[in-house]
Amino acid sequence: MRWTQTLLTTLREAPAEAEIASHQLLLRAGLARKLTSGLYTFLPLGLRALRKVEKIVREEMDRAGGLEILMPALQPPELWEKSGRITAAADVLFQVKDHQDRRWILGPTHEEVVTALVAGEVQSYRQLPRTLYQIQTKYRDEIRPRFGLMRAREFIMKDAYSFDADEESAKKSYEAMTQAYRKIFERVGLAALQVEADTGVMGGASSHEFCVVAVIGEGEVVTEEGGSYAAAIEKAVGRPVERKGGEGKLEKFPTPGIRTIVDLEKKHGVVAQDQIKTLVFTNGKETALVLVRGDDEVQEVKVGKVLGAGYRVAAEAEIKVAMGASPGSLGAVASTLEGKKVTVVADLGLKGQKGMATGANDNGFHFKGVEVERDLKIDQWADVRKVRDGDISAGGKKLKVSRGIEVGHAFLLGTKYSEALEAKFLDPEGKQQPAVMGCYGIGVTRTLQAVIEVHQDKDGIRWPASVAPYTVMLVTLDLADPAVKAATEAVIASLDKAGIDYLWDDRDERPGVKFKDADLLGFPWRVTIGAKSVAKGGVEVKCRRAGGMEMIPPADVGVWVQNKLAV
Amino acid sequence: MRWTQTLLTTLREAPAEAEIASHQLLLRAGLARKLTSGLYTFLPLGLRALRKVEKIVREEMDRAGGLEILMPALQPPELWEKSGRITAAADVLFQVKDHQDRRWILGPTHEEVVTALVAGEVQSYRQLPRTLYQIQTKYRDEIRPRFGLMRAREFIMKDAYSFDADEESAKKSYEAMTQAYRKIFERVGLAALQVEADTGVMGGASSHEFCVVAVIGEGEVVTEEGGSYAAAIEKAVGRPVERKGGEGKLEKFPTPGIRTIVDLEKKHGVVAQDQIKTLVFTNGKETALVLVRGDDEVQEVKVGKVLGAGYRVAAEAEIKVAMGASPGSLGAVASTLEGKKVTVVADLGLKGQKGMATGANDNGFHFKGVEVERDLKIDQWADVRKVRDGDISAGGKKLKVSRGIEVGHAFLLGTKYSEALEAKFLDPEGKQQPAVMGCYGIGVTRTLQAVIEVHQDKDGIRWPASVAPYTVMLVTLDLADPAVKAATEAVIASLDKAGIDYLWDDRDERPGVKFKDADLLGFPWRVTIGAKSVAKGGVEVKCRRAGGMEMIPPADVGVWVQNKLAV
Repeated sequence: MRWTQTLLTTLREAPAEAEIASHQLLLRAGLARKLTSGLYTFLPLGLRALRKVEKIVREEMDRAGGLEILMPALQPPELWEKSGRITAAADVLFQVKDHQDRRWILGPTHEEVVTALVAGEVQSYRQLPRTLYQIQTKYRDEIRPRFGLMRAREFIMKDAYSFDADEESAKKSYEAMTQAYRKIFERVGLAALQVEADTGVMGGASSHEFCVVAVIGEGEVVTEEGGSYAAAIEKAVGRPVERKGGEGKLEKFPTPGIRTIVDLEKKHGVVAQDQIKTLVFTNGKETALVLVRGDDEVQEVKVGKVLGAGYRVAAEAEIKVAMGASPGSLGAVASTLEGKKVTVVADLGLKGQKGMATGANDNGFHFKGVEVERDLKIDQWADVRKVRDGDISAGGKKLKVSRGIEVGHAFLLGTKYSEALEAKFLDPEGKQQPAVMGCYGIGVTRTLQAVIEVHQDKDGIRWPASVAPYTVMLVTLDLADPAVKAATEAVIASLDKAGIDYLWDDRDERPGVKFKDADLLGFPWRVTIGAKSVAKGGVEVKCRRAGGMEMIPPADVGVWVQNKLAV
Repeated sequence: MRWTQTLLTTLREAPAEAEIASHQLLLRAGLARKLTSGLYTFLPLGLRALRKVEKIVREEMDRAGGLEILMPALQPPELWEKSGRITAAADVLFQVKDHQDRRWILGPTHEEVVTALVAGEVQSYRQLPRTLYQIQTKYRDEIRPRFGLMRAREFIMKDAYSFDADEESAKKSYEAMTQAYRKIFERVGLAALQVEADTGVMGGASSHEFCVVAVIGEGEVVTEEGGSYAAAIEKAVGRPVERKGGEGKLEKFPTPGIRTIVDLEKKHGVVAQDQIKTLVFTNGKETALVLVRGDDEVQEVKVGKVLGAGYRVAAEAEIKVAMGASPGSLGAVASTLEGKKVTVVADLGLKGQKGMATGANDNGFHFKGVEVERDLKIDQWADVRKVRDGDISAGGKKLKVSRGIEVGHAFLLGTKYSEALEAKFLDPEGKQQPAVMGCYGIGVTRTLQAVIEVHQDKDGIRWPASVAPYTVMLVTLDLADPAVKAATEAVIASLDKAGIDYLWDDRDERPGVKFKDADLLGFPWRVTIGAKSVAKGGVEVKCRRAGGMEMIPPADVGVWVQNKLAV
């Protein structure tokens, strides 16, 4: 393709709203353009890269036995009522109303539709297992779309759904899909971590996220130094660094004006790790106290798992009614909870701790010398703290918390959807059974941008060859020179013959402009054809990632690149 | 692909709602399934055929210099306000409301979005011409979706948009696109007529439709027997068969109770072609009479072109107020229109006609002996009649009216959108000019179904090889027989080697069931591997379209099919 015949304008500066490098480069390199917040048009170059990502996804899905289908984006809300997600996922659903006042949902995902499909198509265990997938445009009503394709209103997903006759078989399908995911991310040039994850609104028995570590990531992942443990922060388990606390007598002491952990440390010298942090949750009817060490944070997703759905952090007024005291003076010392209807959940990190301080449920008073098991009313022990950098793993290794971009997600769903939407089959004994399901998503457009985020430097993108819009940027200088023209034709012929795709910068521009743009666009190899080098019988080939420059005879360029790609 | 590993269930009977053959076959052959009215899921086989159509479309678009992009389906209504289509196209627009009460449009087409894009990307005549295209899911709020993929709420379109510096260049881009269209339809196996068409709500200077003649078509096309003239019915021009009418005196006569052309013929012996049909149109303020011969129909689209936008057939009450008489007694005899503010448009077919009858604008009275030019008040002559089967073309040939499926449409748009959305460029003199545009659509999913509609018989589909889900149906009988197994493996190896795709019917079913399904699915070749023929050293190859049966050695099947495909 000739530059002067495609639609490609590079920008010196990215619009101010593009806060992160990959978003800036997406715009600066002419890959995409914003239509309006959260909606992007793929220009020819961006679409080429996107199609290469899609092709890799499709190849690995097919290899893993996936069957490609294509479901409508418009969905009848009745299906979402059956699964119960019409309310659970209401926040992100775009609702459509037609001229006959019927409502439709613009699908953010397709568990309901695919399960209803399979309910109609699969009657017997002989038709199982099956994994169906599609690569399709999805919609999410994002209140604050940001970071370009990272969090958009409209985006491309690969979503897959496995249907099995039993749990064991479902686990095999799950493993086949996650293996395909590992391969896909490797092929597109992403070192994605497969981490244990929370199942969230999707439901199901277990789940993994695929995360690319990047400072701009919207999630957090926990990894073990020198070990294999990896989990999303919502799910991660760690042991805090040990504290030392001595024996002592439970003693109430006045703490006027103290409202926070920091206050108590500053004014009374009780360091945060010697305090107990007490949070109040409510479901509107019942009240629960959640206790963690003072230097820890409560992980609300974990609390949700322990207390059940519907619990939230209580408002100050609710706290006063339930506890008779204000935040800052709360605690779970047994004597102070008498007559109060509260359930107390204590973090495992508090087990065996002594010599701690906690609120007295009496404004302006705390206890010191608290021995957790001796003094507190504890109804349930659970892991409810948020893992911190430096925590210790179950295997005794150090844990590290990093920010990550979630590029994929897998859920072992069980029978939640197949029961609700009656995807049942006859087992060998002739009994009706619900199919055991899994679902698997890759954010295809997000993956594309994650590739750019990871592979860039101050000059521009550094595409992995597998998904670069073109493999070669052909830069012709001295366009009017007949020898240069002949050399360019020879290079083009050799690239065509080798099946290497290229963009030919045939613009009438200065070398500096062309080189700057070649670095910005960042295709794996730049081939420069100028009078000087041609006179010496060669053209300059430069690798965008490794740097370095080689002189290659024009007619050999295709094979040379082909050999490099094969490495 | 093995039948037992894909998702494929054939149906003996199609659901009752599937009224036409292609819709029935779509469902019976397991190509697609209905989610709900107007929304279909493509199953693996249907998606394969769809992708083959898309690939052909893409190849021909690229060959014609098109640049593929991908625009969002969600569009901001502000763009549609600028073009004025927010009201003009309101009927078919799905409107979306988000949680922040902002409105969005689900795009049925992308003139607005692409023009806004080009406004930002193209600054100079040096960047023109450009033709941008996409293959994308579109949405139309169809009140009555029907015929499966033919008229669906959600469907796949290839839409292209050309931008040129001047009219002459725009015509070249238009010609390149329509040529690509002809090639596309030919390659997918459709004898599509390129017919002159009305520009409708799209606007612009000229337009062509691509129509596939089929009795179930929703439109009508007019073709010349033994000539090249072809036009959509809305645009077609023809001359009615001559009538003979004698000279005579204008004479009013009583016609009590006469309300229709048929009435007057039956009760007074005035045949339809000797009558003048008078229709009243109004734009709410002004009134116009439209006259055609009694045996002709008024073509409303043509009337709209003559009278301008906003005119419609008047209601009975409006007619009485304007004309002082009821439908059935209306006419344009000059003396009866005195004092009435009406414009009269007469069809060209009435020119020179004598001895006709028409209403007297006096209930229960008509005139006979009408000589059109002598007696009527005519403000404008125009072609406003609907062409009828048997009319005569400008070249003196017989015209034929057929029903047709519209699979493609091209519009030379001019500067309507580029002016409204400011897609302007600097010409060589440094003056700002609006780009001259064209737009071009192919209904990709509709095209797929049109292929089925045209290529089928009582037993099932008869796919053209270019878009068949698979090229070969491999039917293995006697699965347990070791010689059959070996022959099957040899056939598979030869097909793989030749790059021929196939579906292997490895089901444990009776031969009759397999043959019936093979005919229903209708891939170009069926290869049957059974103990009898294998014993004779061959397998049976049957062509679905041409019939006939050949015995081929198993290892030669791949090359044999390859050779047939190359013909």
